[in-house]
Amino acid sequence: MAEGSKTACAIIIGNEILTGRTQDVNLGYIGKKLLAKGIRLMHARVICDIEADIVATVNDVRAKYDYVFTTGGIGPTHDDITADCIAKAFGVDIEVNEEARRILIKHYKGAEHLNEGRLRMARIPKGASLIPNPVSSAPGFCMGNVYVLAGVPSVMQGMLDGVVAKLQGGPPIISRTVSSLVPESIIAKELGEIAAKYPDLDIGSYPYYRPGGFGLSLVIRGREESAISAATQDLCLLLRHHGGDPAVHQE
Amino acid sequence: MAEGSKTACAIIIGNEILTGRTQDVNLGYIGKKLLAKGIRLMHARVICDIEADIVATVNDVRAKYDYVFTTGGIGPTHDDITADCIAKAFGVDIEVNEEARRILIKHYKGAEHLNEGRLRMARIPKGASLIPNPVSSAPGFCMGNVYVLAGVPSVMQGMLDGVVAKLQGGPPIISRTVSSLVPESIIAKELGEIAAKYPDLDIGSYPYYRPGGFGLSLVIRGREESAISAATQDLCLLLRHHGGDPAVHQE
Repeated sequence: MAEGSKTACAIIIGNEILTGRTQDVNLGYIGKKLLAKGIRLMHARVICDIEADIVATVNDVRAKYDYVFTTGGIGPTHDDITADCIAKAFGVDIEVNEEARRILIKHYKGAEHLNEGRLRMARIPKGASLIPNPVSSAPGFCMGNVYVLAGVPSVMQGMLDGVVAKLQGGPPIISRTVSSLVPESIIAKELGEIAAKYPDLDIGSYPYYRPGGFGLSLVIRGREESAISAATQDLCLLLRHHGGDPAVHQE
Repeated sequence: MAEGSKTACAIIIGNEILTGRTQDVNLGYIGKKLLAKGIRLMHARVICDIEADIVATVNDVRAKYDYVFTTGGIGPTHDDITADCIAKAFGVDIEVNEEARRILIKHYKGAEHLNEGRLRMARIPKGASLIPNPVSSAPGFCMGNVYVLAGVPSVMQGMLDGVVAKLQGGPPIISRTVSSLVPESIIAKELGEIAAKYPDLDIGSYPYYRPGGFGLSLVIRGREESAISAATQDLCLLLRHHGGDPAVHQE
């Protein structure tokens, strides 16, 4: 990866992902969104709704990556403990945030409808800034380099889109895919030689299964169009040499 | 969680998951499969195809959990580095495993078709035992408490099913879901009281968005049927009290 690139880590919080009850779709969305901004999602952790795990994970990764995104655990119920854990991780108090409270009063059409559960969603670590929620109002927040987002995908996406628009990114990362039905085990050695020829590119080989056999996608990622074009040409030649009919897609 | 439960961690290896190119579906499958065996998947990490990251992650988590499952990076190409990394993590050599070589010769119909790339899939850390691959032959392997599986979902599933059938598990974990259209913010406080009443159960609250508004699934997990039934009844009463028409599902 190019020098000076910004890096990110995601923390997916929620027992439901680890039990297989809920299929996570947030990770891929975060990865794609950041990539388009020139930021590489380098790592992710999926963890349970356990305070000690959340606090330790946040403190571990926020020191290692430029940006950290958490999803899940900021709703109104007893298992929504993310905000408290972020406060603990940063060693700050948590309190009802007046701006968040006003947003919720407006959403629920009056302070008289702001019951204990709903008010819980206005509890924000001291010193954090709010992240607008264009879908269901209750805000996320940003503390240091940690962006705390909802778990429900539509809400998470609305929050993330707003955050990423304002983030400092890097030169965009270009991605090109060369697909064919040539088995990867046939071309593995020469593919490795092509990958070694372009050290600044990331060339991945992804077989996929479909009824009737395996197909293969070779994905080239990098920042220099000239190198990407040259590598694309090398890969197409290699695949044609082995009887393939490669198709090239820009992602 | 009950005392003496076995725990597990998954390591999802592959740049393609973190770039959002490929939607991971292995994590949920692993979580469900283990849960049915009475083993809790407590943690997962999604990491890049970078040797230092894989080695460090494997060594970190294999000390903390009873079982570790890795997916991805055991194919024939230059970016398939998982087997080498496991050998490094355990401080053992890696070599062509004769049993794996025989399996591949049979699959590719003759030693003369076992080119360098394909032979790469027979390189197994010394001391590991093979995990059969009922889909495409090239085996996974088990080293200590680490089970190294393929990344392609159908292949991963075939390998995992065989492994889990032989694992030592625990009493099965029962899961029951109570669904309704009552917003979670209305019942949050009383829900927390019910959760506190059953400390041995794990009660999760999962709102989901659907056109027209939010629905809510309350998921109860535990090992004692009597406690689960009592909690189910309490939740149904709570939801009916707030105008809901709860539906109960056994998962």
